[in-house]
Amino acid sequence: MRTLGVDPGTRVLGYGLIDDSRDELSMVRYGIIQCDGRSAMSERLLYIYTELTEVIRQYSPDQVAVETPFVGENIKSALAIGKAQAVVLLVAAQNGLPIYEYSPAQIKHHVADYGASSKEQMQEMVKMLLELDELPQPNDAADALAVAICHLREAHIQELMQENA
Amino acid sequence: MRTLGVDPGTRVLGYGLIDDSRDELSMVRYGIIQCDGRSAMSERLLYIYTELTEVIRQYSPDQVAVETPFVGENIKSALAIGKAQAVVLLVAAQNGLPIYEYSPAQIKHHVADYGASSKEQMQEMVKMLLELDELPQPNDAADALAVAICHLREAHIQELMQENA
Repeated sequence: MRTLGVDPGTRVLGYGLIDDSRDELSMVRYGIIQCDGRSAMSERLLYIYTELTEVIRQYSPDQVAVETPFVGENIKSALAIGKAQAVVLLVAAQNGLPIYEYSPAQIKHHVADYGASSKEQMQEMVKMLLELDELPQPNDAADALAVAICHLREAHIQELMQENA
Repeated sequence: MRTLGVDPGTRVLGYGLIDDSRDELSMVRYGIIQCDGRSAMSERLLYIYTELTEVIRQYSPDQVAVETPFVGENIKSALAIGKAQAVVLLVAAQNGLPIYEYSPAQIKHHVADYGASSKEQMQEMVKMLLELDELPQPNDAADALAVAICHLREAHIQELMQENA
């Protein structure tokens, strides 16, 4: 099973692909889609759409997990992230892929089960879990891998609960 | 010049097409894209994407005007509208169409220049300006026509300002 994790943004969108079999995780690929900060929002969304469609074409994930925007003080930023997230949802649906949404708190909770708490520790944990030689860079890519790990943890817990039901 | 106005939403998205020449406005077509309320957000966004692409293919607008979500008490609703709006921005960019965004306040201001104030009066004004026999229904379609009128008014004012500069 191959999971595409996405950390959406209209400047930088991080993505990460993880294969799992019998709880063993292996990183397939990670990277970012970097938009031109001077471009109009519509052009950026089109760029994300085109690039993400290409990532899916190239790496054929079975499912997508995406972070939902955190609505804190900065509503404007949450709305922008929501727009990038909408494109991720659209591209997933267009490719017939199931998509799962997770809040930053859920992601932190699931990855923190392994003992991480700060953002830096979360990234260290991503590195460790995926047996990478170095910290995934930039942070957006590491965050995208964390979203994928979050989903795999959640799916695993759901599975255990069903077995014991 | 043909303008496509859009009132975005993830349940009902209104659209309206207006032709203008020498300040004369004529309504070409209006309608709604109605999503299945039970569908997942990703499926709704895909439906909006597909239907709106078809509207553009069929009616070949030259430009698009879209309402931006009002961020009031209901952040969740603003985020959902923002998602639908993102798809409108994407489809416009994909079809090489310039896109203009207007806030509810701007739309009210521009249409209220003609003397409207309440939502009902705004819709009456849309009917009058476009010389329609009846009020455009549902409201989402009337609102979409108001967005297009707002843009044409704004463009007209910009033009006058440039001439007098």
